[in-house]
Amino acid sequence: MSVTAAKGFTAAGIAAGIKENGNPDLALVVNTGPRRAAAGVFTSNRVKAAPVLWSEQVLKTGEVTAVVLNSGGANACTGPKGFQDTHATAEKAAEVLRIGAGEVAVASTGLIGVLLPMDKLLPGVEKAVGELSQHGGEKAAIAIKTTDTVHKTSVVTKDGWTVGGMAKGAGMLAPGLATMLVVLTTDADVSSADLDKALRGATRVTFDRVDSDGCMSTNDTVLLLASGAAGVTPAYEEFAEAVREVCDDLARQLIGDAEGASKDIRIEVVNAASEDDAVEVGRSIARNNLLKCAIHGEDPNWGRVLSAIGTTKAAFDPDRLNVAINGIWVCKNGSVGEDRDLVDMRYREVTITADLSAGSEKAVIWANDLTADYVHENSAYSS
Amino acid sequence: MSVTAAKGFTAAGIAAGIKENGNPDLALVVNTGPRRAAAGVFTSNRVKAAPVLWSEQVLKTGEVTAVVLNSGGANACTGPKGFQDTHATAEKAAEVLRIGAGEVAVASTGLIGVLLPMDKLLPGVEKAVGELSQHGGEKAAIAIKTTDTVHKTSVVTKDGWTVGGMAKGAGMLAPGLATMLVVLTTDADVSSADLDKALRGATRVTFDRVDSDGCMSTNDTVLLLASGAAGVTPAYEEFAEAVREVCDDLARQLIGDAEGASKDIRIEVVNAASEDDAVEVGRSIARNNLLKCAIHGEDPNWGRVLSAIGTTKAAFDPDRLNVAINGIWVCKNGSVGEDRDLVDMRYREVTITADLSAGSEKAVIWANDLTADYVHENSAYSS
Repeated sequence: MSVTAAKGFTAAGIAAGIKENGNPDLALVVNTGPRRAAAGVFTSNRVKAAPVLWSEQVLKTGEVTAVVLNSGGANACTGPKGFQDTHATAEKAAEVLRIGAGEVAVASTGLIGVLLPMDKLLPGVEKAVGELSQHGGEKAAIAIKTTDTVHKTSVVTKDGWTVGGMAKGAGMLAPGLATMLVVLTTDADVSSADLDKALRGATRVTFDRVDSDGCMSTNDTVLLLASGAAGVTPAYEEFAEAVREVCDDLARQLIGDAEGASKDIRIEVVNAASEDDAVEVGRSIARNNLLKCAIHGEDPNWGRVLSAIGTTKAAFDPDRLNVAINGIWVCKNGSVGEDRDLVDMRYREVTITADLSAGSEKAVIWANDLTADYVHENSAYSS
Repeated sequence: MSVTAAKGFTAAGIAAGIKENGNPDLALVVNTGPRRAAAGVFTSNRVKAAPVLWSEQVLKTGEVTAVVLNSGGANACTGPKGFQDTHATAEKAAEVLRIGAGEVAVASTGLIGVLLPMDKLLPGVEKAVGELSQHGGEKAAIAIKTTDTVHKTSVVTKDGWTVGGMAKGAGMLAPGLATMLVVLTTDADVSSADLDKALRGATRVTFDRVDSDGCMSTNDTVLLLASGAAGVTPAYEEFAEAVREVCDDLARQLIGDAEGASKDIRIEVVNAASEDDAVEVGRSIARNNLLKCAIHGEDPNWGRVLSAIGTTKAAFDPDRLNVAINGIWVCKNGSVGEDRDLVDMRYREVTITADLSAGSEKAVIWANDLTADYVHENSAYSS
């Protein structure tokens, strides 16, 4: 159902010929109203792709009518020509849809530093408009895949209104945001200010806490569009919770499909002095290559967890640190704890619990292991 | 020649039985005087191994007579018993050498979270004392190896005085310091204050700029001992330069022997607004797993360099960034530059030049590629 689960949206996904292998590579999402409120969150990488620079401007109006997304090329580090190409893409969609280019957000994903084949992309936009449908959500989700092995969608339905969405992302997943394109839609009637607040609140504890490989993208874009077609304005907290649920589900799907990964690692940091401390410690553990290798080898190497905690500025006493792996407290009071042979790591999901004994705050960060397959996927060809 | 190249030092390296495979695992370095000035630099990881906590105290006196180093166990995260074991090691060496335990520094390397087999280590100390020799430097360097494939030594001889040293380190190499044990010796007559200044100055631009895998150890120790046996006190700058030369040589050897690496990556950041900016950008590039994979695949993927630069707080304008790989400026003004097919990456050493166009400062960071062999070495067994 994806982006068309909510009323007031149509979508399409087609093969425009941007990808040489002929796979779907262009998606279009259109808000048919009656409202066109929107909010967006973008990469905090200072090297931003042309479509990010463009869409940031579009979102300043608080309204978006259409989103054009392409895989097969990131249009990042492509200079003035790259920005012109993004602009031309929005103009083309605007022309065919008979709206203004300033109502069209654009998102791209793929290899950095290569210009998009506009001779294929622009006719593709026209073709996609012709295929717009209230049932086009799945096709749109498929068209934004890069190295994703599956497309990712999620829907939460409440009392008379719905939040749905699609996501892509398989590598370069790290806070701020992960290398992801996400479009969320709702038929609830919500102001752009509340959409913005709900979206930022949700990404902060979901997409921003996914850290597959410590690498931050130039193209991350998360958009939330509201059509108001359900004619309902839910209580803010209820709406924000639904947005968070969808983001959480999509974020978990991203980690589950990360490039070359064999394990999904849930890192729970508990009893921290502050939430910031918990997040900092979680990210440090998530990014430790030696630990990621050990988890791949199903080795409960808690020394590498302590070594990672030790590089942070978080409040803790080394002699009061406790670490559990899949529930076995292998490290107690900074030293040897329960027998590490008790740890069962055969399953894909592995939970590392780091107890800082310094307060009562906590956070969860999701990461992946480091595998020879990851090296292969990212060394055998440009991506 | 190693630590015994300078006059006034003896050393030994033996197999004490700490390593199950019977390889050498215990080294002893003794300063026979007439001076015993010393300085030390230790890991900035807040989770510090017992020998680091001990040796930090010893170094506060500014004098060290002997250093006991073992491989086969890090004695980190081993609680009060671990600290007692380090203390007992120093006491044993002191007893046999007829000096005070407070004159004995201790360093350990190996798996975290395992107690050392003291029933083997203590007799090993006694045996090592019996094998002390003015020609024992090579054996000592061999005994501190863990996953190192070669032992590392370096010597610089000046006008009547010498600085020499040994190092070990193959994984967990990252600033502050790398996972390394290093002992440097000199027969110059230098005060502990000047030793400290020269050592800190040298490590800041050598060992602290080696970043094999972004992981910081609990055990890093770099010691510099001066015997004064040459009867010469060189000009400070000349002495500091010799220490820097030896550190630079050893640091380069560490990168050249990093676990599973197939490439040594020299990252030059130029035209930065400050040296700190240059170092921050260099480290960010050095730690980007996607780039490290690309270099392994001999793929001049400059987009991943820009993506890494973009995550820093350094001063730069994205549209004025230039990147060369092995001398070919593949990225100019933040966009596509010279033909990437011109880049020849067949050799082990790869140079990435990042030009920030923001000033005149610069720094060099050394890193390694990310390979399936690295994953194998760090997942197939505990280390």
